[in-house]
Amino acid sequence: MASAATNFSLSLCTKHQTPILKPSFFFYPTTTNNNNNHFFKSNKCPSLSASTARNSRICATSSRLMDPSAAKSEPTLTTTVLVDLGDRSYPIYIGSGLLDQPDYLQRHVHGKRVLVVTNKTVAPLYLDKVVDALTRGNPNVSVESVILPDGEQYKDMDTLMKVFDKAIESRLDRRCTFVALGGGVIGDMCGFAASAFLRGVNFIQIPTTVMAQVDSSVGGKTGINHSLGKNLIGAFYQPQCVLIDTDTLNTLPDRELASGIAEVIKYGLIRDAEFFVWQEKNMQALLARDPSALAYAIKRSCENKAEVVSLDEKESGLRATLNLGHTFGHAIENGVGYGQWLHGEAVAAGTVMAVDMSYRLGWIDDSLVKRVGDILKHAKLPTAPPEIMTVDMFKSVMAVDKKVADGLLRLILLKGPLGNCVFTGDYDKKAMDDTLRAFCKS
Amino acid sequence: MASAATNFSLSLCTKHQTPILKPSFFFYPTTTNNNNNHFFKSNKCPSLSASTARNSRICATSSRLMDPSAAKSEPTLTTTVLVDLGDRSYPIYIGSGLLDQPDYLQRHVHGKRVLVVTNKTVAPLYLDKVVDALTRGNPNVSVESVILPDGEQYKDMDTLMKVFDKAIESRLDRRCTFVALGGGVIGDMCGFAASAFLRGVNFIQIPTTVMAQVDSSVGGKTGINHSLGKNLIGAFYQPQCVLIDTDTLNTLPDRELASGIAEVIKYGLIRDAEFFVWQEKNMQALLARDPSALAYAIKRSCENKAEVVSLDEKESGLRATLNLGHTFGHAIENGVGYGQWLHGEAVAAGTVMAVDMSYRLGWIDDSLVKRVGDILKHAKLPTAPPEIMTVDMFKSVMAVDKKVADGLLRLILLKGPLGNCVFTGDYDKKAMDDTLRAFCKS
Repeated sequence: MASAATNFSLSLCTKHQTPILKPSFFFYPTTTNNNNNHFFKSNKCPSLSASTARNSRICATSSRLMDPSAAKSEPTLTTTVLVDLGDRSYPIYIGSGLLDQPDYLQRHVHGKRVLVVTNKTVAPLYLDKVVDALTRGNPNVSVESVILPDGEQYKDMDTLMKVFDKAIESRLDRRCTFVALGGGVIGDMCGFAASAFLRGVNFIQIPTTVMAQVDSSVGGKTGINHSLGKNLIGAFYQPQCVLIDTDTLNTLPDRELASGIAEVIKYGLIRDAEFFVWQEKNMQALLARDPSALAYAIKRSCENKAEVVSLDEKESGLRATLNLGHTFGHAIENGVGYGQWLHGEAVAAGTVMAVDMSYRLGWIDDSLVKRVGDILKHAKLPTAPPEIMTVDMFKSVMAVDKKVADGLLRLILLKGPLGNCVFTGDYDKKAMDDTLRAFCKS
Repeated sequence: MASAATNFSLSLCTKHQTPILKPSFFFYPTTTNNNNNHFFKSNKCPSLSASTARNSRICATSSRLMDPSAAKSEPTLTTTVLVDLGDRSYPIYIGSGLLDQPDYLQRHVHGKRVLVVTNKTVAPLYLDKVVDALTRGNPNVSVESVILPDGEQYKDMDTLMKVFDKAIESRLDRRCTFVALGGGVIGDMCGFAASAFLRGVNFIQIPTTVMAQVDSSVGGKTGINHSLGKNLIGAFYQPQCVLIDTDTLNTLPDRELASGIAEVIKYGLIRDAEFFVWQEKNMQALLARDPSALAYAIKRSCENKAEVVSLDEKESGLRATLNLGHTFGHAIENGVGYGQWLHGEAVAAGTVMAVDMSYRLGWIDDSLVKRVGDILKHAKLPTAPPEIMTVDMFKSVMAVDKKVADGLLRLILLKGPLGNCVFTGDYDKKAMDDTLRAFCKS
């Protein structure tokens, strides 16, 4: 009766080695009642088509911009996606070679002092380039930097304090600008530090991973982990701009690439069926780092994210749907120890669990279950939690999830045809128990 | 030429002993050019008169409210001052016995879970009373509490983490409410914790010191200290309401009472001459804890604070004027060690220094200098920094003040007749050096 899920086995390894992934196999029951696909009110918005992507909320434009200080450069095709939040609106610039064009950054720097927050992996690759982009032809600006250890396990208060220490020792004032240079951990920590330093200074996101470029750098969710749960301490705090230089993906390890694709897949599942179909056809190109495929996936992901954030900045409803698979995934990240599984790996396994539960509830049919398993396996992502996870470990961490309200855990579950989901606490608890037992040995 | 200032001598003592204060004596030069009282653009608003206090921004009303669950209680005269911030507006309730009237608190509690943040001094006095006010006739609400050590020296990240630990261990969710029960340190820390827990939950201020009732609980400035400076990490985050039960002042030590009066005096100096004159006449009544005098001083202070906050929530200009004496004062607090001098004591000495500097600049006349010294001495507040403070100690801490902008330290200085001030970086640096040298032995 229960779905059999061969657990994804991950050898604990250092971050920049490729993990030993043993793709899971799913055998879904066919006896579950599929006729119970009644719909209740969904927070879902219409899927984003090419036309709606250019409406008043999402302004995606392409422009050829010359680097004013380097006439030798070739003009670069740049896409701009606007996050529409009234007087806190900001652009997401997406393109190749943007870090060679100082104007993009410099137009968003306030004051004369900048603090770049980055990590030990990214600093040797891009810190000099960013400092150059901030200061070229702009001698009045001085740049400090703080280089943090790399990994989710350092997304904590102790590490955050190093940012404050550096900012205060450098005597930065309220007119300074923080720049987050790195992946999601750096962006979340730098953003939270910017929100709290002197009660708030400006900041800029320069995401260098797919994960950060398609998801975490956009929308102003910042924060750190607590030993008992992920992202439990933080702020909603929007950047001045997000600058995505797709060239930075050239140095990204394969495992990190795949991790980011988990969030790309998410957008297709929750609200953009057309994008999901595109991903099914183009996954090989994404994994092969085809520049145009990556650029399209990033742009379309940002358009989806920007639209959701514009409609529901503080996550009163719709925005929560971006967390498909995240409640199970956060439990995995916490359970195996922060940094052992990448965020997207945990989200991938969590997505499979959410899809399994949706199927048990009779809310989706088995063909969608299969497509989700297939695309995640194609992307070389795990499709089940690690063997050490127990039912109790899941329940313990999920009890402190931010989506708990008055004791009730609300989840994002798929419901209906591809591209539809609900955010709800109104589900049969037996389905969750069954899902947990199906994916855990104890 | 320089003013001679006999230093205020404070024996380091535990917080609830009365410090040995040796009031200072000021001898101001009379040779400084007093004809240079030119005015430049001031951020000052008109003084708040009884009529303007009832305008659209400040809604101060008195009402007799019956405690619905305790018919034996006498009706209590309650004043409500509104902080007008659009959809984040909130009331300040001021009156005797408000904690015996549960409706005031309960109408602002969101969700079913409450976390009271208080300290070891206040908890034995008022925690049970507050828990009763939260739960009487309201059995669905459950209350947790976290009791922090008492004192400015604990306003740090380590102590703040205890609030997060308790909230997470108690499995509080986004619909919970934090309640700050205590003085300024508790209010600032609880507010910052509320701003960051799950990226923001509701909170209520129940200030129990004059300092917190007239100043720190109103206006949404929250935060903690860093070893290098005060309030350098925090957030602008507004409460749902401020509940001032003036009965809580009955247990306040004399030294704490005087400390709060320093902020009351500030309002008169920067923007409310009529209030300052009232204070000159009523200081003895305030020190004797005359209930009607205290209630009036609290109400009028809150009206001033509410008006300033409504006009400039994020301190782009006008709000900074509330920091008269605070830049020098923060340096004193840091220099002697957090918690050794109370905030208002340091502000009092800092105010004398700011007034001295204003006089050296020719911006005020010597009669105002004398009135400031007199009222502070009358309030048993220090009128000079402690002897250990050196010019370098002042300059070092003042360099990381939040009012530094692009390297320039902006100060609040008096200019013109009583009730007028400016917030400016445009002053003769020699005046500051002269002031620092006049008040420091080295």
